[in-house]
Amino acid sequence: MADNRGVSYMSPGKVEVHDIDYPTWELKDGPGVNPANVGRKLPHGAILKVVTTNICGSDQHMVRGRTTAPPNLVLGHEITGEVIETGPGVEYIKVGDLCSVPFNIACGRCRNCKERKTGICQNVNPDRPGSAYGYVDMGGWVGGQADYVMVPYADWNLLKFPDKDQAMEKILDLTMLSDIFPTGFHGAVTAGVGVGSTVYVAGAGPVGLAAATSAQLLGAAVVIVGDMNAQRLEQARSFGCETIDLSEGDPVDQIEQILGVNEVDCGVDAVGFEAKGHGRGAQEAPATVLNTLMDVTAAGGALGIPGLYVTGDPGGIDEAAQKGSLSLSLGTGWAKSLSFTTGQCPVMKYHRGLMQAILHDRVQIAKAVNATVISLDEAPQAYADFDSGAAKKYVIDPHGSVAA
Amino acid sequence: MADNRGVSYMSPGKVEVHDIDYPTWELKDGPGVNPANVGRKLPHGAILKVVTTNICGSDQHMVRGRTTAPPNLVLGHEITGEVIETGPGVEYIKVGDLCSVPFNIACGRCRNCKERKTGICQNVNPDRPGSAYGYVDMGGWVGGQADYVMVPYADWNLLKFPDKDQAMEKILDLTMLSDIFPTGFHGAVTAGVGVGSTVYVAGAGPVGLAAATSAQLLGAAVVIVGDMNAQRLEQARSFGCETIDLSEGDPVDQIEQILGVNEVDCGVDAVGFEAKGHGRGAQEAPATVLNTLMDVTAAGGALGIPGLYVTGDPGGIDEAAQKGSLSLSLGTGWAKSLSFTTGQCPVMKYHRGLMQAILHDRVQIAKAVNATVISLDEAPQAYADFDSGAAKKYVIDPHGSVAA
Amino acid sequence: MADNRGVSYMSPGKVEVHDIDYPTWELKDGPGVNPANVGRKLPHGAILKVVTTNICGSDQHMVRGRTTAPPNLVLGHEITGEVIETGPGVEYIKVGDLCSVPFNIACGRCRNCKERKTGICQNVNPDRPGSAYGYVDMGGWVGGQADYVMVPYADWNLLKFPDKDQAMEKILDLTMLSDIFPTGFHGAVTAGVGVGSTVYVAGAGPVGLAAATSAQLLGAAVVIVGDMNAQRLEQARSFGCETIDLSEGDPVDQIEQILGVNEVDCGVDAVGFEAKGHGRGAQEAPATVLNTLMDVTAAGGALGIPGLYVTGDPGGIDEAAQKGSLSLSLGTGWAKSLSFTTGQCPVMKYHRGLMQAILHDRVQIAKAVNATVISLDEAPQAYADFDSGAAKKYVIDPHGSVAA
Amino acid sequence: MADNRGVSYMSPGKVEVHDIDYPTWELKDGPGVNPANVGRKLPHGAILKVVTTNICGSDQHMVRGRTTAPPNLVLGHEITGEVIETGPGVEYIKVGDLCSVPFNIACGRCRNCKERKTGICQNVNPDRPGSAYGYVDMGGWVGGQADYVMVPYADWNLLKFPDKDQAMEKILDLTMLSDIFPTGFHGAVTAGVGVGSTVYVAGAGPVGLAAATSAQLLGAAVVIVGDMNAQRLEQARSFGCETIDLSEGDPVDQIEQILGVNEVDCGVDAVGFEAKGHGRGAQEAPATVLNTLMDVTAAGGALGIPGLYVTGDPGGIDEAAQKGSLSLSLGTGWAKSLSFTTGQCPVMKYHRGLMQAILHDRVQIAKAVNATVISLDEAPQAYADFDSGAAKKYVIDPHGSVAA
Repeated sequence: MADNRGVSYMSPGKVEVHDIDYPTWELKDGPGVNPANVGRKLPHGAILKVVTTNICGSDQHMVRGRTTAPPNLVLGHEITGEVIETGPGVEYIKVGDLCSVPFNIACGRCRNCKERKTGICQNVNPDRPGSAYGYVDMGGWVGGQADYVMVPYADWNLLKFPDKDQAMEKILDLTMLSDIFPTGFHGAVTAGVGVGSTVYVAGAGPVGLAAATSAQLLGAAVVIVGDMNAQRLEQARSFGCETIDLSEGDPVDQIEQILGVNEVDCGVDAVGFEAKGHGRGAQEAPATVLNTLMDVTAAGGALGIPGLYVTGDPGGIDEAAQKGSLSLSLGTGWAKSLSFTTGQCPVMKYHRGLMQAILHDRVQIAKAVNATVISLDEAPQAYADFDSGAAKKYVIDPHGSVAA
Repeated sequence: MADNRGVSYMSPGKVEVHDIDYPTWELKDGPGVNPANVGRKLPHGAILKVVTTNICGSDQHMVRGRTTAPPNLVLGHEITGEVIETGPGVEYIKVGDLCSVPFNIACGRCRNCKERKTGICQNVNPDRPGSAYGYVDMGGWVGGQADYVMVPYADWNLLKFPDKDQAMEKILDLTMLSDIFPTGFHGAVTAGVGVGSTVYVAGAGPVGLAAATSAQLLGAAVVIVGDMNAQRLEQARSFGCETIDLSEGDPVDQIEQILGVNEVDCGVDAVGFEAKGHGRGAQEAPATVLNTLMDVTAAGGALGIPGLYVTGDPGGIDEAAQKGSLSLSLGTGWAKSLSFTTGQCPVMKYHRGLMQAILHDRVQIAKAVNATVISLDEAPQAYADFDSGAAKKYVIDPHGSVAA
Repeated sequence: MADNRGVSYMSPGKVEVHDIDYPTWELKDGPGVNPANVGRKLPHGAILKVVTTNICGSDQHMVRGRTTAPPNLVLGHEITGEVIETGPGVEYIKVGDLCSVPFNIACGRCRNCKERKTGICQNVNPDRPGSAYGYVDMGGWVGGQADYVMVPYADWNLLKFPDKDQAMEKILDLTMLSDIFPTGFHGAVTAGVGVGSTVYVAGAGPVGLAAATSAQLLGAAVVIVGDMNAQRLEQARSFGCETIDLSEGDPVDQIEQILGVNEVDCGVDAVGFEAKGHGRGAQEAPATVLNTLMDVTAAGGALGIPGLYVTGDPGGIDEAAQKGSLSLSLGTGWAKSLSFTTGQCPVMKYHRGLMQAILHDRVQIAKAVNATVISLDEAPQAYADFDSGAAKKYVIDPHGSVAA
Repeated sequence: MADNRGVSYMSPGKVEVHDIDYPTWELKDGPGVNPANVGRKLPHGAILKVVTTNICGSDQHMVRGRTTAPPNLVLGHEITGEVIETGPGVEYIKVGDLCSVPFNIACGRCRNCKERKTGICQNVNPDRPGSAYGYVDMGGWVGGQADYVMVPYADWNLLKFPDKDQAMEKILDLTMLSDIFPTGFHGAVTAGVGVGSTVYVAGAGPVGLAAATSAQLLGAAVVIVGDMNAQRLEQARSFGCETIDLSEGDPVDQIEQILGVNEVDCGVDAVGFEAKGHGRGAQEAPATVLNTLMDVTAAGGALGIPGLYVTGDPGGIDEAAQKGSLSLSLGTGWAKSLSFTTGQCPVMKYHRGLMQAILHDRVQIAKAVNATVISLDEAPQAYADFDSGAAKKYVIDPHGSVAA
């Protein structure tokens, strides 16, 4: 049995790299593990040597203290790795396979999994449908920002890359398959993006950039990205997006300047509940993004909402926000016959097709999100840099596999 | 040229039957007519002798003074009639045809009409996409609670019944094709109702009953209807629905008693912005229905929202409500990966199929909503009775065609 | 370990009940077992005590000698049973669960299963995607017309009934969930049947009757069933279908008499490759059904083709038929912009919803297909009777559970 | 009234440019005009000065004498032009608008048009649903390979380009919107092409190249095009397709060399009824393409069939072919659960989105199909060159507008 180290959340603003347990064939008690999950047997699991594992914007919600995450929670739900051991119930995945791990943990046996809704699997989180590695209130599955990680239901969850050498050459693209590329793609798809669409993506963080890349891959005519961070907007322009600087105010006028009309066909919310208002020095205003999208999306359009909204936010600006309530201009949405799709992206629905697009050079997602390789020990600094607005997607390389 | 009489909104709580102009081949100025629509030529129109025209719950919003509707506005957007004159641009609809008129006025030439989104036609309402007869802020098309009415773009809008005699035998069912049957059906379809679904419909007014009937027609296993009005709930039970009396509180427990689980697959909002809270003596609380639906709809489900939400409500309970903002528990919806569909039903997408179902005895919508025939002169009383909760759908029969 | 008996195919026209092996946790060699499947371990399996198991029209192809099925092949792919033992890899299905078994054997781990295409699972049949119990060229899984049967991948494949007592009361309906009800439903769905559709179903055997029932459940306005067997047509009329006696010739004129037009919206082929021509004394003519459906389906319609077409038919009428080629009027289909859907029904996509419809009394499938209970020993006679055209669906009750 | 000249079919192999009538507001008798259409009034029409009009592969069927087209039929259904006169019933299209004309003539008033099925409009062709300009058995609408052409139902049919100058700069791309670009796109869409798909397109003529371009635009990972014409294959390679030379035999092995597996996800038939067998010197064998596509498309895949199949072909190789019957290996298709979509592309469903993709530089369709501008007088030679296999798409420029 090898040693293992992982990135743990300690307290607001503080993450540290610690020695952690090497995975075993059952889910052991630990920080944030749901009691009903303690002792759960995992003969269907596989242990992966982590090749890459990315820092995600949704990790930041925990690290900023906007959740009830307990100290010592091992972080990390964006995982790519090589299988080094399989449980006795694993039949098709083999030791040596290089695989992408969907951040959604799913059993492959419940009604929702059978209906491709792996983001709301009924069997992995005793609290409610849906789970993820290394995340608060998700059942207590140990995170993957570590040397080694356990993936349950390996035959169901893992996406094997067809050729390891080819995959290692594109590993910085393929590492985005575990979460942000499918998540951005889901945002674009549920916003109704198709060939010829005009699209507004709110937010130029990695999910926003992934949504913009996805919209292009789906054939969008024009993709406009809005943010207040100049570096991130430059990143968006680097692959052909139009951009709007929201620190200069509401996007409607700027959309009109770009398109000639003040509306788009499709809107994507890649921001979520920590949204700010528009204009210089704008404060947190959690309904801003959704209300703006209702304004700028044309009648008959759709809103894809991959940005996270939560049921409880201890740091919310007011009582309503603290329980996940937003003041939404639904009258506007209704008058325009808009539709809205929320929730975790069911990664398995999309990751195979996106992998094919990557392997055949149809898309450069690593470049779009500015993938930046770091070691496990550099993770705490990367958390801080990402929080301060670095226009980078940090990819942890625990074993130096990518660097090599 | 014949005389014409119509039902006009006069002031909050007051409607009257007056002499009105007989339709002509242009849209003339009048109460609520958008200036940009005045003088519009209508060679594509047809003049109908109204056979039946129903009072709708959305008319009540105007009559209760919850809109900016001006005095003398002729009401009525649920129209069935016989063509007695056609404009020179009408090619396929013929004098003598008995037809259903979709309440959405649509041009049949714009992008949205071509995409079957006739509820948001771009060419009929200068204010914004979407229009209806006899409704405030909808362009100023004269309502059809009258002896005669003009239907523009007749070849596009009218649904001809294949056989007049057969149609007159089922006229009380067919009259529901102009609005509430498709509207309820749209609510059920967009809530994802299919064979075997469990469904909760909030509201047992005519649209709620139509949504419940539609859910059955679509193969739902169980349809549960909630309301506070005992008579309307009895109406729902009369055709096989389960019911929940919301004056006894929140529906979750009652749903669990009925189904064995406390969630349904699909939720329909057939109430809209004048929603009340639950429990005895509950006051207006506009977000109640949507927040309840998010609670009781299972993860992965969908909400169909045919109930009307407006952008301005002079009678709203607070400033937010007055501009159409609602405090919604979006965090709950997001955690459950719910989706939401709002807006006017595009009647044309559904009316032909529903007509076939009626003509071939597959559905009894008139019975389900308790269709009750009245004369034009009885309309003011019917408005009052409907407002006070009568479990009836009033069908005005201006020429005594049904009675005969 | 209990004794076991099963129904075996011996030679054309001859089936017998024999002692057979009790299931074990691996797939053993036997008649028709693919060498690559011999010795396959089944820790994910469950052993079921068979409660009901139906004789299917597709079994008849083997029994009539129209396939290369070897002697001693144990028949039966329509299985409902109680779990009496589970393998070590089974987690959610429990001993005592009463379950429906989809006739498609599926692994729940391959790309196709993840995409809900369980009819073409890639891991269960070494010859090609797709498998079934007790069927020639399907990998060699032992059939379920027996006392006991092994179901692999039990957590994935089995549909548990929520309440055993309730289920036993409706067992003759629920037994149809393993194949013909979903198969007929798939035919209707892929033919585009919706609310208000007019439908022509070719064939009034059990699958045709199930397709007709399904079309009604989906809201079809008119369902017309064609066959040459008077008893089967009477069965179709018993639940509200219109019927056409094909021994009197082509159905076009009769469709026109029923509908007033000579076309339907949707066509279902519930016959397959052993089709005959129309008219009295018509001979086998395998393209008849498909060519007729292209004639009678309106432009823009769709054909659902659950009827089986094979790649090799030793008894085919000519060389083309023997290798599965048909002379199809594709020019007609193309001129009408028709679409066509073929293949095994992916039962898992539909069985849960149909179960709910049965349990809540929304459909009477047992009555529609004339379910008739027999013992295991009566199976050989039932095969003969069914082959001679009995308008019955034979349900084998090996343990006298239904009779009791 | 201006003079008018057009390209007419005279006899097999022979087309000529003649003086023809200038369009009027009714459909006059002439070669191939259906008697029931003679004298039809066209107040809803617009007269266009033709800017570009392309020669289509389906015109070649007529010119090769493979149809019953009469002498003097004016050819041309791929039309782009400027509106120079509008009928009294035209409301939104204005004189001066530069527009693309869908080759499908559609009324915008029938059930099929309302359902977006403009390829099978019920009101424009007395023979059967569906029509086109300048085509045999399509009602007799005068073709547009001419100086001027009449477009009926102008408000419905015409797609106006938003900016004339911008449009003229991309006119060689936009001219493909009238037929081959949407037709190829429809082929790709109905073959199920999505992000990451592998696709085989049979045929490298203009429709095949448009299908390949469309597959790329839809995000396909690999697009493989097969043909026997070396120049056309080179054209396919010029924009990133893989190619297969069918004169070297069946494509299965070559597909395996390209992909590593011998199957693709999606198959497109861009050849139609004049298909040849594979291998050097192969003869006409009309079922070759469809049978090959069934072989090479993976289980669960779909076939898009934009290639034309006819109900009567005087030049067919045998009696079956002459009446449009093909010997299809449906057994193979059924075993793989394939689906098939046939028929004219409903251009209106796609042309707006594709226009947006062109105007925003997302696709270079003119380059892909090698658009080549010629004068009206050069049309006869271009027909001959195209028939002999020139890898060009000929764009007739009657007024020298493009050249200028």
